[in-house]
Amino acid sequence: MIVNGFAALEQHSKLTPFAYNLETLGPEEVEIKVFYCGLCHSDLSMINNDWGMTQYPFVPGHEIVGEVIATGSAVKNVKVGDKVGLGWQSKSCMSCNQCMDGHHHLCGQGEATIVGRNGGFADKVRSHWSWAIPLPNAIDMSKAGPLLCGGITVFSPIILAGVKPTDTVGVIGIGGLGHLAIKFLKHWGCHVIAFSSNPNKKDHILKMGASKVINSTRPEELESINGKLNFILNTANVKLDWNSYLTALAPKGKFHTVGAVLDPMEISAFSLILGEKTVGGSPIGSPAIIKTMLDFCVRHTIYPEVEEFPMEKVNDAIEHLETGKARFRIVLKN
Amino acid sequence: MIVNGFAALEQHSKLTPFAYNLETLGPEEVEIKVFYCGLCHSDLSMINNDWGMTQYPFVPGHEIVGEVIATGSAVKNVKVGDKVGLGWQSKSCMSCNQCMDGHHHLCGQGEATIVGRNGGFADKVRSHWSWAIPLPNAIDMSKAGPLLCGGITVFSPIILAGVKPTDTVGVIGIGGLGHLAIKFLKHWGCHVIAFSSNPNKKDHILKMGASKVINSTRPEELESINGKLNFILNTANVKLDWNSYLTALAPKGKFHTVGAVLDPMEISAFSLILGEKTVGGSPIGSPAIIKTMLDFCVRHTIYPEVEEFPMEKVNDAIEHLETGKARFRIVLKN
Repeated sequence: MIVNGFAALEQHSKLTPFAYNLETLGPEEVEIKVFYCGLCHSDLSMINNDWGMTQYPFVPGHEIVGEVIATGSAVKNVKVGDKVGLGWQSKSCMSCNQCMDGHHHLCGQGEATIVGRNGGFADKVRSHWSWAIPLPNAIDMSKAGPLLCGGITVFSPIILAGVKPTDTVGVIGIGGLGHLAIKFLKHWGCHVIAFSSNPNKKDHILKMGASKVINSTRPEELESINGKLNFILNTANVKLDWNSYLTALAPKGKFHTVGAVLDPMEISAFSLILGEKTVGGSPIGSPAIIKTMLDFCVRHTIYPEVEEFPMEKVNDAIEHLETGKARFRIVLKN
Repeated sequence: MIVNGFAALEQHSKLTPFAYNLETLGPEEVEIKVFYCGLCHSDLSMINNDWGMTQYPFVPGHEIVGEVIATGSAVKNVKVGDKVGLGWQSKSCMSCNQCMDGHHHLCGQGEATIVGRNGGFADKVRSHWSWAIPLPNAIDMSKAGPLLCGGITVFSPIILAGVKPTDTVGVIGIGGLGHLAIKFLKHWGCHVIAFSSNPNKKDHILKMGASKVINSTRPEELESINGKLNFILNTANVKLDWNSYLTALAPKGKFHTVGAVLDPMEISAFSLILGEKTVGGSPIGSPAIIKTMLDFCVRHTIYPEVEEFPMEKVNDAIEHLETGKARFRIVLKN
């Protein structure tokens, strides 16, 4: 079985057409014909080996929408012809405590779609059946790709933190992840406040569902909402004045980061104690929560704002993202 | 109305007999005859004005057990003759969102028993009726005092974090607060691991209900439980290697501090994200949770280990605590 994709042959290189062979399909594996694949910042990090775990030649792509074209002998839940989505994770052991408890994304033996294997910037890709998530019939496949990684990354915290429709919430960083968070939280029923360092995005952010945009570079604007937020979701990968955001939380408020900033977060114990506040984080989400999210998206017509590029123009798409021009998410079409 | 107590006349001074007048009892106030009063580290901090908010002459004492001897015209819930407990907090506004939601201890207008008023190292003390918590009939009043502050401080996190009887939990710092945490968590049904820097306490800690004592000064002992704990309660006021304890947490584990360490807690975002972990904190607890705790204590015969001193020997008691000899909590008797 030959797969035709686009690979980085070495660190920092542009992608070039690349064909590779696949072994016989494993009994629990499915093969997916790729229709669309989102382009995520993590793809850039992997192309550039920022995390020291890239194997070249490397085919990126982990926000995949496609159709099952082959199934192993022990595959459950999906069959040939099913439309499915595949995100950051491609495999779980299915038997550890985390898997048995429904938290397959926390499986210690889990495998990522583009770590040690090739991803979705290709005509085909494979995964364990559990991570090939059946798509609702009515979904717009051309826009659904980014939901599988960026989307679930910001949807899962809403579930984990028990956010309520009556809550006032904040989203820090209105890019690929943050703009989806605003849409989710708006349709969740919340009063949504966006924190952005880019004043040019303000009108668009309001249009997407935020009630207010706070310029996060202006401390006095931050202070105006002290004690008001029940939940803050941080999508930015940069060092923040954490305690200012803890101060913005209401008593019992929750600060949740999906931005994996490398510097330690310097948290005041007093801030946590006096208001019974918490700081938490999460990676992606389980297959069950991805399914829940997709149903919610179809019910409320929630999609990322996408710009579409043909798969052959993948290098143009990468440049568009790298130069900060993407508004807000890029999808490659086969 | 004259109150006879023991006061610090200035910063760092020993306590001396001190009489003071009280105004007419307010309509929502109760007057309590003090039988017993615990001695808490916070009393020392206030005597020494460590927090810059002590008014001298200053009567410490906020772990009070006594009897209601007078009630204002609008007092609810308690009547003359009732045995009650009074802890760190003495008043709430009763009308803000926090009070109306049952979180009177987070009331922005709340008043503490020994901040701007005099406490329980005296024959009498006053509070708002809501904080004079009726004691269960069967309670041992001679040991109950420390439950009202130290006890609720470590009981409330168990409720807040949703600790389950099936959980494996850790307690850091086995002093006045930590030893009560061990007893609560043992009777909660948990598998309890204690972290202590003092090897001499080991046998006693095991006897109180811990299944294992880890010497927190030995990193290799800490590593032996990596990924195993669902909940860690920190009662120590010192800087810790926070990320080692986050590593000790199981996926979805919760680290909760009641130790108000002044240095910022340096938390790795990756540690939170990869395991869906949280870091939180809390102060005392609401009157409703104090009531729940007292019922639980009576049902399971949970009391602090106390050493009793007569009220007149208050300076001996303070010296006993300051020199680290207290095992584990001191109660003064009138």
